[in-house]
Amino acid sequence: MKKKGLLIVISGPSGAGKGTICKEWLRRHPNAVLSVSATTRPPRPAEKDGINYFFKAQDEFERMIEENEFLEYAKVYDNYYGTPRKFVQQQLMEGRDVILEIDIQGALKVKERFDKGVFIFIVPPNMEELKRRIVQRGTEQPEVVLKRFTSAFEEINFIKRYNYVVVNDKIEEAVHKIEAIVLAEKCRVDRNKPLIMQLQGEI
Amino acid sequence: MKKKGLLIVISGPSGAGKGTICKEWLRRHPNAVLSVSATTRPPRPAEKDGINYFFKAQDEFERMIEENEFLEYAKVYDNYYGTPRKFVQQQLMEGRDVILEIDIQGALKVKERFDKGVFIFIVPPNMEELKRRIVQRGTEQPEVVLKRFTSAFEEINFIKRYNYVVVNDKIEEAVHKIEAIVLAEKCRVDRNKPLIMQLQGEI
Repeated sequence: MKKKGLLIVISGPSGAGKGTICKEWLRRHPNAVLSVSATTRPPRPAEKDGINYFFKAQDEFERMIEENEFLEYAKVYDNYYGTPRKFVQQQLMEGRDVILEIDIQGALKVKERFDKGVFIFIVPPNMEELKRRIVQRGTEQPEVVLKRFTSAFEEINFIKRYNYVVVNDKIEEAVHKIEAIVLAEKCRVDRNKPLIMQLQGEI
Repeated sequence: MKKKGLLIVISGPSGAGKGTICKEWLRRHPNAVLSVSATTRPPRPAEKDGINYFFKAQDEFERMIEENEFLEYAKVYDNYYGTPRKFVQQQLMEGRDVILEIDIQGALKVKERFDKGVFIFIVPPNMEELKRRIVQRGTEQPEVVLKRFTSAFEEINFIKRYNYVVVNDKIEEAVHKIEAIVLAEKCRVDRNKPLIMQLQGEI
């Protein structure tokens, strides 16, 4: 029997460095995959369906919501975004680990629907550093920066619903910790029923 | 505040390779320590008090039992053996990880008294291999081999009370998994209250 993959949920406030961590982790684990989101927003020139997003018409997306085909979804302004359950489950069944980079609200919804996932909260070394990172992006208006920063503070409280917290001070170390978490989770007794049954079956 | 160490309990049937794993893990982690047992049996020529064992007179050992000074203890023929709680707690308070190699009965007792420990069950790749390893030791009488093998089979059932199961096929890989487990456990949300409070305190 093929060993199932693991759903690794990488979450945390904006500016914590989720994206960089996922990218580096994927680079080191070429057999794993990034979860591909579905969206109703139109593709940008370089984007490919099934790679960057699954592009869906609005009625199709709404049908998928009704049929419970999302691990989570949200409407942002006029567009829907969601994590299709089927894609994730298919990859896991084929033995591939799936990494999902997602904001805190999304992660908490995923946890309700798929609690076998591993939920990792990425934090900056301190809140000053988080502020610096948000400001440094330079793409946002000052009021957006302030809003992001305020919600980052509020969101820290959700940390207790996660399994792990990883401080992203040095990217190398953070990725190394994620690797350790994934390997350790695969050794958890409750994830190894087939192995235990096999040993018992040899009695 | 100094970060506390972790109690790592390495357990499993005879012949699983607990001792080799602990030795190699300790070699790689010179800041960690092996838990030192107390015993009433007399020291052998090369043994040193406080290094190989804490050697105790019988009345002293029994006083320690009464005063709940053991994480676990057992009487084997005429001699007591036990894991002194104080030594372990002192090392943990000083930030050192403590590794405890112990049989299954002992580990389950430790779990009752110290459930913050990380309980790892070491298994052979298969039961045939376990038999081969027990026989290969060559030090035991055939009836002892048979007894060990029978109890190894029975003991596999206790695996579900542990947190992790590690297959000891290649020693390098088994030790690498233990390292991952230790690092992952240190990232668990419930072991990081001070960090979370610190982040919240910066609001």
